[in-house]
Amino acid sequence: MKAFVTGGAGFIGSNLVDHLLSLNHEVVAYDNLSTGMSKFLEDARQRPQFTFIQDDVLNTDALTRAMKGSDFVFHLAANADVRFGTEHPEKDLQQNTIATFNVLEAMRANNIKKIVFSSTGSIYGEAPVIPTPEDCPFPIQTSLYGASKLACEGMISAYCEGYGMQGWIFRFVSILGERYTHGHVFDFYKKLLDNPKELFVLGNGKQKKSYLYIKDCLQAILFAIEHSQKPFNILNLGTDEYVEVDDSIGFIIKHLAVQPQLKYAGGERGWIGDNPFIFLDCTKIRKLGSTPEFTIEQGVIKTLEWLQKNQWVFERRS
Amino acid sequence: MKAFVTGGAGFIGSNLVDHLLSLNHEVVAYDNLSTGMSKFLEDARQRPQFTFIQDDVLNTDALTRAMKGSDFVFHLAANADVRFGTEHPEKDLQQNTIATFNVLEAMRANNIKKIVFSSTGSIYGEAPVIPTPEDCPFPIQTSLYGASKLACEGMISAYCEGYGMQGWIFRFVSILGERYTHGHVFDFYKKLLDNPKELFVLGNGKQKKSYLYIKDCLQAILFAIEHSQKPFNILNLGTDEYVEVDDSIGFIIKHLAVQPQLKYAGGERGWIGDNPFIFLDCTKIRKLGSTPEFTIEQGVIKTLEWLQKNQWVFERRS
Repeated sequence: MKAFVTGGAGFIGSNLVDHLLSLNHEVVAYDNLSTGMSKFLEDARQRPQFTFIQDDVLNTDALTRAMKGSDFVFHLAANADVRFGTEHPEKDLQQNTIATFNVLEAMRANNIKKIVFSSTGSIYGEAPVIPTPEDCPFPIQTSLYGASKLACEGMISAYCEGYGMQGWIFRFVSILGERYTHGHVFDFYKKLLDNPKELFVLGNGKQKKSYLYIKDCLQAILFAIEHSQKPFNILNLGTDEYVEVDDSIGFIIKHLAVQPQLKYAGGERGWIGDNPFIFLDCTKIRKLGSTPEFTIEQGVIKTLEWLQKNQWVFERRS
Repeated sequence: MKAFVTGGAGFIGSNLVDHLLSLNHEVVAYDNLSTGMSKFLEDARQRPQFTFIQDDVLNTDALTRAMKGSDFVFHLAANADVRFGTEHPEKDLQQNTIATFNVLEAMRANNIKKIVFSSTGSIYGEAPVIPTPEDCPFPIQTSLYGASKLACEGMISAYCEGYGMQGWIFRFVSILGERYTHGHVFDFYKKLLDNPKELFVLGNGKQKKSYLYIKDCLQAILFAIEHSQKPFNILNLGTDEYVEVDDSIGFIIKHLAVQPQLKYAGGERGWIGDNPFIFLDCTKIRKLGSTPEFTIEQGVIKTLEWLQKNQWVFERRS
C-alpha cells in the first residue's frame, strides 16, 4: 500500500511509519512538527519509499495535495493533551474534530477509501461496565478530549456509510514505549531526575489505568486491518490487565533504584475529566487473533529505558 | 428566567418562544433567518419581554454580545436537513458542531450555566434495541447529521463536567405541528397539491417512524428542566407508538380526501443514512411524569390543518 500517516512525526505516528516501511510499504508522513519531532524520522529518511511533508492538517489545500496517490490513510494527528482540555477548549475542536473532517474531505477529493483512526478509551467516560467492551452502554463524555474523539468517530462512521469508505477505529488505552513524550511515566521520570527524593502525585495514587506497549499496538492495528474487513470496524486496544498509579510508580522507582517520598494531591481524579478507572475489554481483537506480547510493567520499563537514553526529549518539552 | 433561544424563528424555536412568553419569561430569540421565518415571531413581537436578534451562531462576537444577561440557553439552531447530508458534509460540521461550540463558549464568556439542546433519535443510528433507550449499546453513526448531533452532545456533556454547567439533552423523534416546514407531511402535502392523483414515495413505504406533536414536545422540555436536575440530563422525547410511512400517507389522504396512486422508489431506506426503524423508549421521561396528549395521527392532522391555512410556506420553500 501507499500509506499516508498524519501525525507521522509523533510518538505513535513515527513508530507506525518505521513499521510500515519495514513491511516495504510506501509511506508519506504528514506532520506540522508542533509536537512531533523530526528526529523521530531519522531512520525513515534513509528509505527511498519514504516522504515527509511538513504541514498542518488544518491547511486543507496542502493536505489534499499531499494525499494524492495514497491509498490508505492512518489519521493519528491530534491534540492528545487530555489534562488541560478545559484551559483551551478550542484545541480539541480544531485539532481533533475539524482536522478529522479535513482528512475525510481530502480523502474524498483523492478518492481514497480506507482510513485507520486513533481513538481512545476516554470516549467511554466513566464507564458503568468495566472492563469496557466496544458496545457498552451509550457513554457520557467527561472530557473535551474524549468528546472530540467521539465526534471524529461519528464522522468517520457516517463517511463510511455515506461515501462507501472503509474505516477502522482503534480505541486505545495509554500507549507506552520508545519515543513516548508525554504521560505519567514521562512526568514521573522527569520529576525524579530533578529530585529523586520526592515525587508529587496527582490524585490519590489509586487511579486504575491500562497501558499498551507501542509495538503490540502497531502489531494489533496491522493485524486488524487485514483480519477485520467490515465497512466500519471498532476495536478496543489494550492489555488484559490494569495497574494502579501506585503500582506504576513502584515499577519506575524500582527500575531507577530511587526511593522518593510520595506526596499525593489527593482525590480520586488527577484532573478535571480524569477517569479513575480505565480498563478496556479487548475480547474482540483477541478473538480476531491478536494478543499483546508485553505486560504493562515491561512497557513501563521499556519506556524508561528509552527515556534514559534520550534525555534530549526533556529539553524539547521543558 | 431570561431565556436565550438560538434558532428562535424556526419551527420548534418559535413555538418555544411563544410558550416561554406565555409563561411570562423574558425571551431573546437569535436566528439568522436562513430557514427560520420572521412571520413565526409575529405574536412574540407584540410582547414587551421579547427581543429578536437577527444574526448567525457562527458569528461568535455577535452571539456573545447577544447572550449577555440571559440565564438559560435553549440551543435549537441547527442544520436539520438530514436527507442531503452527503451533498454538503461541511454544513453539519459548521452549523451543528462548530455552532454548538460557539454557543458553549458564549455561555462561558457570559457565565451562563444552563443549556437545553435539541438532539435527535438519529444518533442511535440503526439501533440494535428497539424501542431504543437512552443507555442503549454504544451506537454506530449512519448519517452526518446524527454524527454532528452526537458531537454536540459530547461537547455539552464535557462542558457540564469541566465548567460546572447544567445540561439537558433531548433526543427527539420527528416533531410535527404548527409552523412545520420540512419533512414528510410537508413534502407529501405539497406534492398532492401539485398533483392529487399520484404520490411518489421514497423507499418502500414500510419505514417505521415515530413523531411527536410540538406542544407535547415543549410541555415535556419545560417539565424535564424542572423535574430532572442532575448536572447532565439526557432524555428521549417521543410518543409510545410508531407508524409506517404508509400509515402516515393513509392519515394524509384521508384528511385531504384524495386518492392518489402511490409510486414507490423501493428499498428499505428513503435515502443514504435513512433509518428504516426509529422508535424511542421514553420510559425515562414518563417516569418523571410527562406523557404526550396527542397521538401521531392527531399530530399529522394538526400539521396538515396548519399547512392548509398557511400555504405561503410553500412559496418560501419551493
